[in-house]
Amino acid sequence: MIKEIDHIGIAVNDLEKTSSIYRDILGLKFKGTEEIKDQNIKHATFLADKVKIELVQTTHPDGPIGKFIEKRGEGIHHIAFRVENIDESLKELSSKGIKLIDEKAKIGADGAKIAFIHPKEMNGVLIEIVEIIEKD
Amino acid sequence: MIKEIDHIGIAVNDLEKTSSIYRDILGLKFKGTEEIKDQNIKHATFLADKVKIELVQTTHPDGPIGKFIEKRGEGIHHIAFRVENIDESLKELSSKGIKLIDEKAKIGADGAKIAFIHPKEMNGVLIEIVEIIEKD
Repeated sequence: MIKEIDHIGIAVNDLEKTSSIYRDILGLKFKGTEEIKDQNIKHATFLADKVKIELVQTTHPDGPIGKFIEKRGEGIHHIAFRVENIDESLKELSSKGIKLIDEKAKIGADGAKIAFIHPKEMNGVLIEIVEIIEKD
Repeated sequence: MIKEIDHIGIAVNDLEKTSSIYRDILGLKFKGTEEIKDQNIKHATFLADKVKIELVQTTHPDGPIGKFIEKRGEGIHHIAFRVENIDESLKELSSKGIKLIDEKAKIGADGAKIAFIHPKEMNGVLIEIVEIIEKD
């Protein structure tokens, strides 16, 4: 089902301060920032070869990243894997009895189709699956 | 400093049970298992294209993975980045005032040279740096 890792999402309190660590200390290539209003987040993206590191800050205390940090503190929030066809992958996961957060794909960063698997099914790991939609 | 992601380490209670999720549900390619006695761990490695997913189980309650799970539960434990020359990277990090868990590299899985950066410096993210040692 899975082709490769698309990105690792890291929950942070201060996007600018943490970005400087990833850029100036670790020397990762900065790709850009994006705000996703309906998810109450903004993120800064860095590249480690083909895999993206997404630093994610909440834009509202009640957003998912705000709640995560309140409960567990800053840290790694999720791993996103690329799949060829997200609708088929979601169907396959359901047929194998895996509980999903998103039964149907929604639109995420860069217009990709995304969905989350329930972390209880994955030993506490929040896994996102991503189908990249090529732009014209 | 960083070339690419080497692996993502995930702390689990039951290596066999969780391995079946990564192999049979997510369909990742199984690479093998290894026990590292002086770190009190055993791990199963899977491949998502070029990046490894390492499921890590403690072999002793007082080992680092045992303590992590006791405190935070199962979940993503660390991200490991490949560097060209670990001794130079450690020197550079120290010169930038970054606190390290390992001032000097130690030997990890597959004979690689590894060291951990202190998670307090990295917003709660435990980062490992890895220099792959090519075998003859």
